[in-house]
Amino acid sequence: MTQNTAQKTEQTGRESTPHVLTLPLEAAQTDRNPHNYERWLIAKLMRMAGSPPIRFQLWNGDVIDPKDQEIRFALHLKDPKALYSLVANPNLAFGDLYSAGRLDVEGDLPDLMETLYRSVHAARQEWPKWLDALWRNHNPRSTGITEAKENIHHHYDLGNEFYQLWLDQAEMQYTCAYYERPDLTLEQAQLAKLEHVCRKLRLKPGMTVVEAGCGWGGLARYMARHYGVKVHSYNISREQLVYAREQARQQQLDHLVEYVEDDYRNIKGQYDAFVSIGMLEHVGKENYPALSALIKRSLKPDGIALLHSIGRNRPMLMNAWIEKRIFPGAYPPSIGEFMEICEQGDFSVLDVENLRLHYAQTLSHWMDRFTENQDQVSEMYDEHFTRAWRMYLAGSIAAFRTGSLQLFQVVFTHGANNQLPQSRQDLYTTPAAPEQA
Amino acid sequence: MTQNTAQKTEQTGRESTPHVLTLPLEAAQTDRNPHNYERWLIAKLMRMAGSPPIRFQLWNGDVIDPKDQEIRFALHLKDPKALYSLVANPNLAFGDLYSAGRLDVEGDLPDLMETLYRSVHAARQEWPKWLDALWRNHNPRSTGITEAKENIHHHYDLGNEFYQLWLDQAEMQYTCAYYERPDLTLEQAQLAKLEHVCRKLRLKPGMTVVEAGCGWGGLARYMARHYGVKVHSYNISREQLVYAREQARQQQLDHLVEYVEDDYRNIKGQYDAFVSIGMLEHVGKENYPALSALIKRSLKPDGIALLHSIGRNRPMLMNAWIEKRIFPGAYPPSIGEFMEICEQGDFSVLDVENLRLHYAQTLSHWMDRFTENQDQVSEMYDEHFTRAWRMYLAGSIAAFRTGSLQLFQVVFTHGANNQLPQSRQDLYTTPAAPEQA
Repeated sequence: MTQNTAQKTEQTGRESTPHVLTLPLEAAQTDRNPHNYERWLIAKLMRMAGSPPIRFQLWNGDVIDPKDQEIRFALHLKDPKALYSLVANPNLAFGDLYSAGRLDVEGDLPDLMETLYRSVHAARQEWPKWLDALWRNHNPRSTGITEAKENIHHHYDLGNEFYQLWLDQAEMQYTCAYYERPDLTLEQAQLAKLEHVCRKLRLKPGMTVVEAGCGWGGLARYMARHYGVKVHSYNISREQLVYAREQARQQQLDHLVEYVEDDYRNIKGQYDAFVSIGMLEHVGKENYPALSALIKRSLKPDGIALLHSIGRNRPMLMNAWIEKRIFPGAYPPSIGEFMEICEQGDFSVLDVENLRLHYAQTLSHWMDRFTENQDQVSEMYDEHFTRAWRMYLAGSIAAFRTGSLQLFQVVFTHGANNQLPQSRQDLYTTPAAPEQA
Repeated sequence: MTQNTAQKTEQTGRESTPHVLTLPLEAAQTDRNPHNYERWLIAKLMRMAGSPPIRFQLWNGDVIDPKDQEIRFALHLKDPKALYSLVANPNLAFGDLYSAGRLDVEGDLPDLMETLYRSVHAARQEWPKWLDALWRNHNPRSTGITEAKENIHHHYDLGNEFYQLWLDQAEMQYTCAYYERPDLTLEQAQLAKLEHVCRKLRLKPGMTVVEAGCGWGGLARYMARHYGVKVHSYNISREQLVYAREQARQQQLDHLVEYVEDDYRNIKGQYDAFVSIGMLEHVGKENYPALSALIKRSLKPDGIALLHSIGRNRPMLMNAWIEKRIFPGAYPPSIGEFMEICEQGDFSVLDVENLRLHYAQTLSHWMDRFTENQDQVSEMYDEHFTRAWRMYLAGSIAAFRTGSLQLFQVVFTHGANNQLPQSRQDLYTTPAAPEQA
């Protein structure tokens, strides 16, 4: 966490950011022996979690192994208080303790998280009601215009240098890539995603596009460069916009691309295409009717809209730790909630594609690069931050691998539009990915 | 209506089938001059309908033209009572009067219906509440196991010879075809639909498939012939099953295809694929949770399910005339209601494709062939029946052209299935339609 960001967070008076980051890095270690009831608690905890193949190593070196299981991972609990946090609120404490270095992991972190997710998910079906309440998840915080700025600032304004360390070198895409072939590089797959989206929008030279939430502006520049369209891209992350504008200027695309520092709710005008990649997660359910109305008035009669978002198979609250520490205000809609946005605007849904496993692969590529550069990340921020982000990336890989999260690309038009593509063949006539990138 | 079917309907004691068919074909013609308030009523009616470019010709030869419009169609009202029926319940009476020959049309019937749909739809936005209530549509009747038999019998047991007059000669498909190219014949497009569905299910030789509602069994035979899979197909239309079994025997596919005369709710076993083409419209919203549970238990862990159904952009009641005269119990789900089926089963939606305009084209092809053979249809049934079916086909063309109806193909799997296709490229490597058919 940069000094600058930390101050901002104090000024807003919210405990949103770094509660975990204020825990002492060197946790209260004790050499005392664990009590018998502490061993009993751990055994109980592991049974609740479906008895995954995980060894528990306690602060004094003692180990507790699961019965009849080949052990694949080990968790080191560094102090007794860590144990009590874990028991009181496992969902939140697991990430916090790991971030603080009071819980350590032996074994591959994404694999461990996937194993835990599967095990807990299966075990939960059998939990009594009171225990399910313990696994408390968050209702996301508000995403009103003022709060949205804070929420977005918390995550996306961490610094472009930071994101450059581990995102693709091609277009700084911080959203799911499209691995039309499993052996694509991250760069190829991100460019393939941009191309796939452009094809779905059936862009033609001279068309106009509005983009809600543009990250570092890669899609807008890609559209301008490869399709000769005019793009208005809205974003409330100032850091991202600085980068986006500089790139457009350097690439001499600024006559086609305009980056607007404003909330998507203030989009003006009518366009041939409406596109939003990875913003819906931050919109909040209470704002879906307004988003739907916005798209309705922003899209020309024959226009095409595409929303790309993390989603769910059915409505679920956001993981508490992620909402609290990583993505304040985030809520991935279920496929039904997603369709409500379309129904409210009397839109006609043309195409839904689910790229769930593509996001698991994207995140694996990000995690590899993040790990390669983690010393540099720790220098920029601190060790807490690095560990929290490792947990976030690993947990996300696990969530997509286990189907707890989905990635939906939804294409729709006004209900009365008859200028529809004959089929989806045109998306697949040539590879979407460049041969090299 | 065959004598046999008419009797059945009397036995069930429902007025479902042929109320319209009992109206006198030669309507009570009168030569009296229309009253001034009758002219006023017609003018009022046309304004309510958004002033479409339609001339009204009355029973005595008088005409009433819309103001400032180039007239494209004419409606002949044959008797004063027809006018009062139309005013009292336009939604239902329009089809009934046309069927009875008491309302006649000059101009292309599908074009007239499309024009009327668009005009009424636009005008409705301005209607007062009480007027909207006049346009009463139906809550569909029950689709319990007993009633479903009646509902299906009413429509699908009209006689195979009848459907052979105007469905494709390839596989007797009474569902939306897939025009991957706009110039395909009906036969090519229906075979392309079967192929497209098989590709979406990623069938491989030796797999097992269960089909809920199989019509004349064409998909099951196609799957067996081209993909070497074993298919169990459920249907409650006896007439269709007679044909389906005979075809499978003749084509020596009966070792791979088994047609089961039973309700889909009684499906047993677990399969690699679950498919249902054009049955969901008849399932009824109250049975979606049961359908969802059925698919959940019938699909192997790595299996793929596909539902193909007429749908809506948002929830709407069924057109009253269609529900009453043509498809008792029918209800096309909105895209959101469709997704509820997937959410209830914790399924992961992989792919949604909307083939709305393909259904308009399919229906146009059907209507052309129906019109060519209408004398024969009238001989088989009677003139009333032929006119009712013309109205149904024309109205359906209009509904798909104007976006009042959609056609969704939805592919989904169990939420934990990670054996997913890398992309949808494999659907498009070669044309789905045969070069000739």
